[in-house]
Amino acid sequence: MSNEAYRPGREGSAMYELMTRLFPICRSITGDGTRETLRILQETLPDLNIHEVPTGTKVFDWEVPKEWNVRDAYILDPDGNKVVDFRQNNLHLVGYSTPIDQVISLEDLQQHLYSLEEQPEAIPYITSYYKERWGFCLTHNQRKVLRKGNYHVYIDSKLEKGHLTYGELIIPGSSEREVFISTYICHPSMANNELSGPVVTASLAAWIASTPRRYTYRIVFIPETIGSITYLSRNLDVMKSNVVAGFNVTCVGDDRTYSFMPSRYGNTLADKTALHILRQKHTDFVQYSYLQRGSDERQYCSPGVDLPMVSIMRTKYGMYPEYHTSLDNLSLVSPQGLKGSFDVHQDCIKLLEKNYTYRINCLGEPQLGKRGLYPTLSTKESGVIVRDMMNFIAYADGTNDLVDISNLIGTPVQKLYPIVDNLVGNGLLSRVE
Amino acid sequence: MSNEAYRPGREGSAMYELMTRLFPICRSITGDGTRETLRILQETLPDLNIHEVPTGTKVFDWEVPKEWNVRDAYILDPDGNKVVDFRQNNLHLVGYSTPIDQVISLEDLQQHLYSLEEQPEAIPYITSYYKERWGFCLTHNQRKVLRKGNYHVYIDSKLEKGHLTYGELIIPGSSEREVFISTYICHPSMANNELSGPVVTASLAAWIASTPRRYTYRIVFIPETIGSITYLSRNLDVMKSNVVAGFNVTCVGDDRTYSFMPSRYGNTLADKTALHILRQKHTDFVQYSYLQRGSDERQYCSPGVDLPMVSIMRTKYGMYPEYHTSLDNLSLVSPQGLKGSFDVHQDCIKLLEKNYTYRINCLGEPQLGKRGLYPTLSTKESGVIVRDMMNFIAYADGTNDLVDISNLIGTPVQKLYPIVDNLVGNGLLSRVE
Amino acid sequence: MSNEAYRPGREGSAMYELMTRLFPICRSITGDGTRETLRILQETLPDLNIHEVPTGTKVFDWEVPKEWNVRDAYILDPDGNKVVDFRQNNLHLVGYSTPIDQVISLEDLQQHLYSLEEQPEAIPYITSYYKERWGFCLTHNQRKVLRKGNYHVYIDSKLEKGHLTYGELIIPGSSEREVFISTYICHPSMANNELSGPVVTASLAAWIASTPRRYTYRIVFIPETIGSITYLSRNLDVMKSNVVAGFNVTCVGDDRTYSFMPSRYGNTLADKTALHILRQKHTDFVQYSYLQRGSDERQYCSPGVDLPMVSIMRTKYGMYPEYHTSLDNLSLVSPQGLKGSFDVHQDCIKLLEKNYTYRINCLGEPQLGKRGLYPTLSTKESGVIVRDMMNFIAYADGTNDLVDISNLIGTPVQKLYPIVDNLVGNGLLSRVE
Repeated sequence: MSNEAYRPGREGSAMYELMTRLFPICRSITGDGTRETLRILQETLPDLNIHEVPTGTKVFDWEVPKEWNVRDAYILDPDGNKVVDFRQNNLHLVGYSTPIDQVISLEDLQQHLYSLEEQPEAIPYITSYYKERWGFCLTHNQRKVLRKGNYHVYIDSKLEKGHLTYGELIIPGSSEREVFISTYICHPSMANNELSGPVVTASLAAWIASTPRRYTYRIVFIPETIGSITYLSRNLDVMKSNVVAGFNVTCVGDDRTYSFMPSRYGNTLADKTALHILRQKHTDFVQYSYLQRGSDERQYCSPGVDLPMVSIMRTKYGMYPEYHTSLDNLSLVSPQGLKGSFDVHQDCIKLLEKNYTYRINCLGEPQLGKRGLYPTLSTKESGVIVRDMMNFIAYADGTNDLVDISNLIGTPVQKLYPIVDNLVGNGLLSRVE
Repeated sequence: MSNEAYRPGREGSAMYELMTRLFPICRSITGDGTRETLRILQETLPDLNIHEVPTGTKVFDWEVPKEWNVRDAYILDPDGNKVVDFRQNNLHLVGYSTPIDQVISLEDLQQHLYSLEEQPEAIPYITSYYKERWGFCLTHNQRKVLRKGNYHVYIDSKLEKGHLTYGELIIPGSSEREVFISTYICHPSMANNELSGPVVTASLAAWIASTPRRYTYRIVFIPETIGSITYLSRNLDVMKSNVVAGFNVTCVGDDRTYSFMPSRYGNTLADKTALHILRQKHTDFVQYSYLQRGSDERQYCSPGVDLPMVSIMRTKYGMYPEYHTSLDNLSLVSPQGLKGSFDVHQDCIKLLEKNYTYRINCLGEPQLGKRGLYPTLSTKESGVIVRDMMNFIAYADGTNDLVDISNLIGTPVQKLYPIVDNLVGNGLLSRVE
Repeated sequence: MSNEAYRPGREGSAMYELMTRLFPICRSITGDGTRETLRILQETLPDLNIHEVPTGTKVFDWEVPKEWNVRDAYILDPDGNKVVDFRQNNLHLVGYSTPIDQVISLEDLQQHLYSLEEQPEAIPYITSYYKERWGFCLTHNQRKVLRKGNYHVYIDSKLEKGHLTYGELIIPGSSEREVFISTYICHPSMANNELSGPVVTASLAAWIASTPRRYTYRIVFIPETIGSITYLSRNLDVMKSNVVAGFNVTCVGDDRTYSFMPSRYGNTLADKTALHILRQKHTDFVQYSYLQRGSDERQYCSPGVDLPMVSIMRTKYGMYPEYHTSLDNLSLVSPQGLKGSFDVHQDCIKLLEKNYTYRINCLGEPQLGKRGLYPTLSTKESGVIVRDMMNFIAYADGTNDLVDISNLIGTPVQKLYPIVDNLVGNGLLSRVE
């Protein structure tokens, strides 16, 4: 497995470069832009499987929509100047616009134009997946200077039977139990929401594949909503059996404060793990309520699906001014922002891998000295290690997992990892299945 | 069923008028005053059954006492003036006074007089059910001007074997499961405690009988304490099997702040329902502890009885200065005060009737559009409705009832009623039995 | 059973006198000092059994160490003056020092000296149980004036195969269920930590033996850590079956604020009982975390041992400046301090003895009058007693023990004792096994 996106120590710039390459592509919930995105991701993740699901396939309460592709789209003003051009910015075209080639008055055109009066320099991002229409998006400043007269509107798009496309990567571990990672690839040129998700996920996948692991990792690159519904409708049983924790990776690219979207009741292993890491490393993170959800947890955590799925984000979708506009571009995100998100997900995965329920194998306190578990040099630091070890042992009673013990004794899990390894190595500690 | 007490839109004045009619009657825990009260209630509630339980009947740890009736009672001063007269105010006579016809000195008389130094214009309400004695109650101002001399005390009462009388109304629903409503009819001329209870209960009963219903309603008009003990001793088994929630209706007539008496542990469906309505509509309500109980929850919530019984009151018994005096009269209560109490109990009953555990019938979010569940006009308000519906669906997972979901998503139950009806109507939502 | 230590009304001075007698003895985790201490305790507690466990015996993860005894130890300065003398204060010798008889330079001697720069008038308490070495402890002021030259160090000690000695007293009750009391006897001349523990325990044992009791009391006087491990390794099964609550009695001699060390999860009957008494009588007590443990709860509450063991202390070990120095002497503790600790443990034991789960035997409120349970004189105080009785009855539903009910109704257990006796005596109340 190649490591284009995962270069240890340089993950940030690698992810940013990959995003830069994916940025210009016009993605939607179906179509060739999504296929091209997956093909580029395969360069990093050669084992990524690309699945095609035909239009009209029943998926739970929904069905797979027609496939949409665009060759060109523009508006010519009364003088024949191209005043709005899809090839300059794919946000100019309303997603899923039907084809048109017509001359209409400015008055009629206005019914099909979308701009943001309060953000006059931003092109809004608009789609119409489930009602057929056409339209253009532009900055409010552009719109204001349109003169009276007749405009030539041209959209060379196809909306017809085809497929919904998604990518799936299974990285087997020693156990059938799974960690699930989902991210989406259905937005055109926007950086924090959405390209930060696929590039951080690709890096995580490359890192996971490069290290020994206990869990099997199920990693998907899908269109949001209809894609997660489609994927679930094909894989729900095995996922309900096997998935122990999941992460919906979205909005992980900017440098702003971390934030957290819990699962439906906030009581899963994914919640526990993510909150433990956030509380330890990013104490100022923003805790959202499930009532403020808006991404694929709406499907993954829905009744009957009930997957243990959370999102650890930088600024949450809908909560930053550039959201769903052309201002959510490559200047909004940074290698450092991506790297921070990579790190916090990596910390969660490392913790999941270590997070057994432990039980000490002796009655009363063990004699550490005869086992070489006392530091040979008695310093303040070694005293802390012994205290942490004795506290760990005190609660390693077969009812607590590592996160529980860490929470009970107030010692970061990172400091407990070597203690656990020592105790397991000495035969003093067992894992409870 | 006639609706004298239940005139939609005019419940307040109807209840007040009924109370005015019942006010002069001399009620006690037994006797003809109670019978007359029940006969008048039968005009509103023709299906009300009147039960008679003989003196001496064993009821749990107690037995039904002798029946008490009074024809007349007064005190003549040394000049032959009637200075205290039962016919003017039945509070003048200590409840359960034995008969007497005797001339005694003022000094001896004083041993049988009761007044309130700190409320010199109030006649206190005094009873002596379980120790035979006689006495008169009067205002402290009256008492102060009694001159030395001999007084003629006259009480024409009977205390002999008879019956304890109570009224019972069963309004059958589609289910055998019951809502229980209890109120008491054992106090002479006092308004907030007690006549507000029977008149609000009568109005509720008339309204319940006039609307479709799921639950069976068991509604009783009984003397307090000995009456609830008697009723329980005859009906405990069926009530323990069937009652899902109960309300002890007392002190519901004045205009002051609402208050709440929980059940023994505060964890029943009645508590949950009542608190939900109070927190929503009367956020300044006073929450009492079960340690401050004083009415029939003492029997209904006792160990082994364990009925889910609460009281939603205006000012609680014992907590207002007019309590148990002649100042608790028709000027203390109002049509508006009664109507507010009627409304809050009605809201609780409506909620109980709607309060199923719900489960959504599809995996993933349902597609609302194809089912016509999206508002046709997209407005800010319709957006809120969609959000409420999606949130409702998110927690309609077969583990939460309607109150739980309302509490989880922060949307008032009233706004959820049409959503539930829509979803059930569309087959998207099931009730879990 | 003689009552030297338990003189009702004079427990404080009796305990202080016993401590004064035990103070000069040189105790350690093994040896004749411990034996002599137990022999003196036998004068108060003739049924105290003394057990000897041979060196080398496997006890859980440990083994019983060699026995240590000292005849003499001193340091002669270059002029032949005895500058440090074990016979003046047994803290001068490092515990478990190996024998030596040698002349060495001050420089070499310094490697074997221990003093406290910040407490220049205190002799520190130092031991080296599990690494063979020798050393002397002295005040920092003494140490500073040692002149250059050769010193004669002399330690006449024996470290050889022998026994670990402990005392065990079983006071049988009507039930096989046990209350466990443990205290330690392994420290040389120090008062709060440790002699307060054995003398308070001896007084408690004498009092327990003198009163009727339900529980069997298992009371041990053991060396800390290795002693509790040894005792557990010989008695764990019966203790796990029978012990309902336990107290590790330590640091109970000074006059300072009470403090509390919970069990591992703080959720045992011992925690509940002790906290109830402390919250009632010593509201300013200091609540420690199990993470701050340091005495035999480390063994008694360890995983797999899981005994319900707490400590109620005055100032906790390690939290007062005199701790583990010669300043922890007879002037630090007082008869009043000891008596206060005796009282709080006595209160806990009285509560444990009374602490059944209760169930009222009638439905609805009982009629107190016919049973003579109403006070004959109606006063404010008698009203409070009736209210307490009715509240007690309200929660005596077979799910709450006495502590639970006291916590629920806010009435001190001491006020509930006579109520419980009355109700049980009248047949109204049952104990639920």
